[in-house]
Amino acid sequence: MKITGLASVEQVAVTMEGARDVRKGIPIGAADGTPNLSVRVFTIDPGGHTPYHRHPFEHVNYAIRGTGAIVTETGEERPFVAGDFALVLPDEKHRYRNTSDSEPFVMICAVPKEYE
Amino acid sequence: MKITGLASVEQVAVTMEGARDVRKGIPIGAADGTPNLSVRVFTIDPGGHTPYHRHPFEHVNYAIRGTGAIVTETGEERPFVAGDFALVLPDEKHRYRNTSDSEPFVMICAVPKEYE
Repeated sequence: MKITGLASVEQVAVTMEGARDVRKGIPIGAADGTPNLSVRVFTIDPGGHTPYHRHPFEHVNYAIRGTGAIVTETGEERPFVAGDFALVLPDEKHRYRNTSDSEPFVMICAVPKEYE
Repeated sequence: MKITGLASVEQVAVTMEGARDVRKGIPIGAADGTPNLSVRVFTIDPGGHTPYHRHPFEHVNYAIRGTGAIVTETGEERPFVAGDFALVLPDEKHRYRNTSDSEPFVMICAVPKEYE
């Protein structure tokens, strides 16, 4: 069993092309012996966003803090704010972005452990 | 893509033996077409707890609100409070309980979708 606080999770800048002002941490991952599921936490600063991309696995999200949006396959912006859950299906093009100009947007992103 | 707010998730009482004052909702589950991961949300009222049990799959948790504890295999109570992540490994005996006498304890529980 592992229990760890959000404040203790080391976060590093995401340098993937298309990312801007995003940090990532991995509170629960393959290194912890999880058999199936990993959990990452992303902090997106005002003006920031993740890459607009797709991949062959799903994201299961929960927004912890702030106000953001998910840009969909068609370019639509769907609000995604603190207290919301989201499912992005495999191969659905998507981008998460912070829609506030003053506070960070913080969200959980669970994936199959093969991917993190 | 599905986006749904915590307040919109229907929660029903957990009637499993050993549960007390617990409600469960499923914001993201097999019905949404998720290929690997489901997410449940549990609300445990003051004095309440989940069953003290084990099963052959992991739990990946995030505590959204309140103060609780996870009772471990050996009976130890490990604090598990808002802002904490937890990993309960397959076959590890565990119980979640609310340690406050005044406010609900709300937590996310991700599992392989075969189990929910």
